[in-house]
Amino acid sequence: MTLLDELTAVLGPAGCLTDGLEGAKSDASGTGRTAPLALLRPATVAEVSAALAICHRHRQPVVPQGGMTGLAGGANPGPGQIALSLSRLSGVEEIDPDVPAMLVCAGTVLETAQKAAEAAGFLLPIDLGARGSAQIGGLIATNAGGLRVIRHGTTRDNLLGVEAVLADGTVLSHLNRSVKDNTGYDLRHLIAGSEGTLAVITRAVLRLRPQGPPPATALVALDGYPQVLALLRLAGARLTVSAFEAMWRDYFALNQQLANVTAFADPPAFAVIVETESGDAALGAFLEEAFEAGLITDALPAQSLADARRFWDIREGHAMDRALPHLLNLDVALPVGRLDAFAAACRARLLARYPDAHLSFFGHIGDGNLHIAVDAGSDAAHEVDRIAYGIVRDMGGSISAEHGIGLLKRDWLDHSRSPAELATMRAIKAALDPAGILNPGKVI
Amino acid sequence: MTLLDELTAVLGPAGCLTDGLEGAKSDASGTGRTAPLALLRPATVAEVSAALAICHRHRQPVVPQGGMTGLAGGANPGPGQIALSLSRLSGVEEIDPDVPAMLVCAGTVLETAQKAAEAAGFLLPIDLGARGSAQIGGLIATNAGGLRVIRHGTTRDNLLGVEAVLADGTVLSHLNRSVKDNTGYDLRHLIAGSEGTLAVITRAVLRLRPQGPPPATALVALDGYPQVLALLRLAGARLTVSAFEAMWRDYFALNQQLANVTAFADPPAFAVIVETESGDAALGAFLEEAFEAGLITDALPAQSLADARRFWDIREGHAMDRALPHLLNLDVALPVGRLDAFAAACRARLLARYPDAHLSFFGHIGDGNLHIAVDAGSDAAHEVDRIAYGIVRDMGGSISAEHGIGLLKRDWLDHSRSPAELATMRAIKAALDPAGILNPGKVI
Repeated sequence: MTLLDELTAVLGPAGCLTDGLEGAKSDASGTGRTAPLALLRPATVAEVSAALAICHRHRQPVVPQGGMTGLAGGANPGPGQIALSLSRLSGVEEIDPDVPAMLVCAGTVLETAQKAAEAAGFLLPIDLGARGSAQIGGLIATNAGGLRVIRHGTTRDNLLGVEAVLADGTVLSHLNRSVKDNTGYDLRHLIAGSEGTLAVITRAVLRLRPQGPPPATALVALDGYPQVLALLRLAGARLTVSAFEAMWRDYFALNQQLANVTAFADPPAFAVIVETESGDAALGAFLEEAFEAGLITDALPAQSLADARRFWDIREGHAMDRALPHLLNLDVALPVGRLDAFAAACRARLLARYPDAHLSFFGHIGDGNLHIAVDAGSDAAHEVDRIAYGIVRDMGGSISAEHGIGLLKRDWLDHSRSPAELATMRAIKAALDPAGILNPGKVI
Repeated sequence: MTLLDELTAVLGPAGCLTDGLEGAKSDASGTGRTAPLALLRPATVAEVSAALAICHRHRQPVVPQGGMTGLAGGANPGPGQIALSLSRLSGVEEIDPDVPAMLVCAGTVLETAQKAAEAAGFLLPIDLGARGSAQIGGLIATNAGGLRVIRHGTTRDNLLGVEAVLADGTVLSHLNRSVKDNTGYDLRHLIAGSEGTLAVITRAVLRLRPQGPPPATALVALDGYPQVLALLRLAGARLTVSAFEAMWRDYFALNQQLANVTAFADPPAFAVIVETESGDAALGAFLEEAFEAGLITDALPAQSLADARRFWDIREGHAMDRALPHLLNLDVALPVGRLDAFAAACRARLLARYPDAHLSFFGHIGDGNLHIAVDAGSDAAHEVDRIAYGIVRDMGGSISAEHGIGLLKRDWLDHSRSPAELATMRAIKAALDPAGILNPGKVI
């Protein structure tokens, strides 16, 4: 039997597709050009295991695919590779209200899992814009960040247990449900963030949280970055902060205009959205204290959900894509105190190379995470990366705060990790996937 | 040159001791009987690296030692082993108030680091009874739990970056200071909890938090475990909980008597200490709601720090050691909903085997962590472990919630981890320490 015959025998014809695979070419980065040889769609953990065992015997490279919402090309097939979609291995299997936690299959769409948690009276504290497509397995494999990190951490911080299948089909299952478990090496955190290169995630136990009160939101104006840092610290001391999103003047001015909103007619050096679970009264007292301490020059507390929505519209910048045809969105992290120095260096060097480029800065700065919006014309991506990641390297930062490495950042990984670290990662890869069939060419 | 000559040449005579090594025989479990061949005391990361490179060349086993407060024998030398103490590699190198985070050397005593954080206006959210001796490196190596887990997680949850030295002397440094960093495999979480078998931790970046308000504390009485679970859930919804410690009647009754305190003259089925950062008013309202919902039968809000101290004296049970000469303290984790069923099964089977044994149960149950105090006479430890861990295995729990595996739990590790997981751990061990010189015989 050929490889595909063997796979079809195990997965059935609906589990091994060879036609109509356009959608399996690329993640949301749009950079994938190659259709996979076949798209496997196992419906059970046993089928994932059987399919991988067959591929392993044939030394057939396999690229795991979730909701294809990644931005680093991590799920793009290379030539001659087979794609393995987790979409059919889907559903919330159990909600344990005492822990509280959820046992969920890897192919479950995030929004589906969120709604199941909500129906049981809980919050699943992982959230991001792609919630309608992103799948739990992919979120874990990339350690997705998103909107609630400052309050509840990244995906790995909400992961209690995981089940995954190694390259040879071995099922590694530790569907732990306790916050504490010190029984040997933490394989959970090794698999989380490994972007499908060490194992294929099949199920997970995710922590749930109590449903919080509706957030109180304000947009504030500040004169400089030292004030932003002081405000962040004051917010941490006075409030339960659920978002602290900073926009540099360039980003705020452009997106206020694109969103057709006038929050601050005269765009300040920095605009910050502060969102808290502590309620309107606590937010009001905090704003007053910040104003009296000279940290902020103006503040707009949201009077309604619509108000808050307008602030977020500016921050989310959905119209940028249309306004800037060659928009790149870089995602870096540095110690929060250095973000503005980084932005200044980045602006100077990129404008020296591309005098007409659009450049603007914004970020989840409570997490040390800065995004850089760049439009330097077509075909500038590599050179923009080179310049920006060079500064990240010199300043000791991370070239990927939340998007992962995938394919697109692989060549820059040595800007954030040392030769000793890369060698250690390769040793781990060789130990867990000696034939190198799992997502080859990605990450390392 | 002999091995010891080489080591002395690099570390100096004060860095390579061969006399007076009684203190290096055993951790706080008191089970170590063998003095090491030598005690290395490197004072810099470079010296740790040089010493390990020499030992690696000689294939000399090395056992890393911190404050020796572990309870699993993880730092006990075996015959012919050399001990490597981090005590001289000590000190807080930097506090970054913006992140906020602390760069600290591995040999720093926890209490010293806590005080440095406090002096800078922050809280280091790792705390446990052994704070006066336990060292940062050991806390990370064992992923220590302790008193603040329900609020701030275990040690790994407060670890942003780590520097460690591999068996061959390679320095692996990633002193990251951002909450987000998705650049390849998470070596930090692999090293944390590996109990000195993969690398020797030399420095770390730990998250700091704002200093919270003084806690409000209450001791409450409950009639059954379903009420305990319901109270835990209500507390999570209404309060910022900093402790939720349950005592089964057997534990509460004994320790109330030993502590010479009368909190509840008629010991209830369960007594729970609830501690919160939400303040006395919120705690009062919560207790009222719990009482009206029939969850609690009595409540004693602490009126003073001395009141709270008395409640904690009962919980900490410091007099048990003297009252029970052969006291064992087991440390397991299960999904929180199953803890009482576990306690019942454990009680039944241990009393069937040891009818006169003392048995009592208490735990950080918000974390799914149960401790079992057992005195079944001398030489009962192995048989008690066998019975208790057998039930843990059957109920799908963890044989070590926070104490780690070390030497004493190694033979039971397969009760919590599958053959596939153990094989994967061994593959990782072989990849990072192919000569097997780092803490051989521990964990796996």
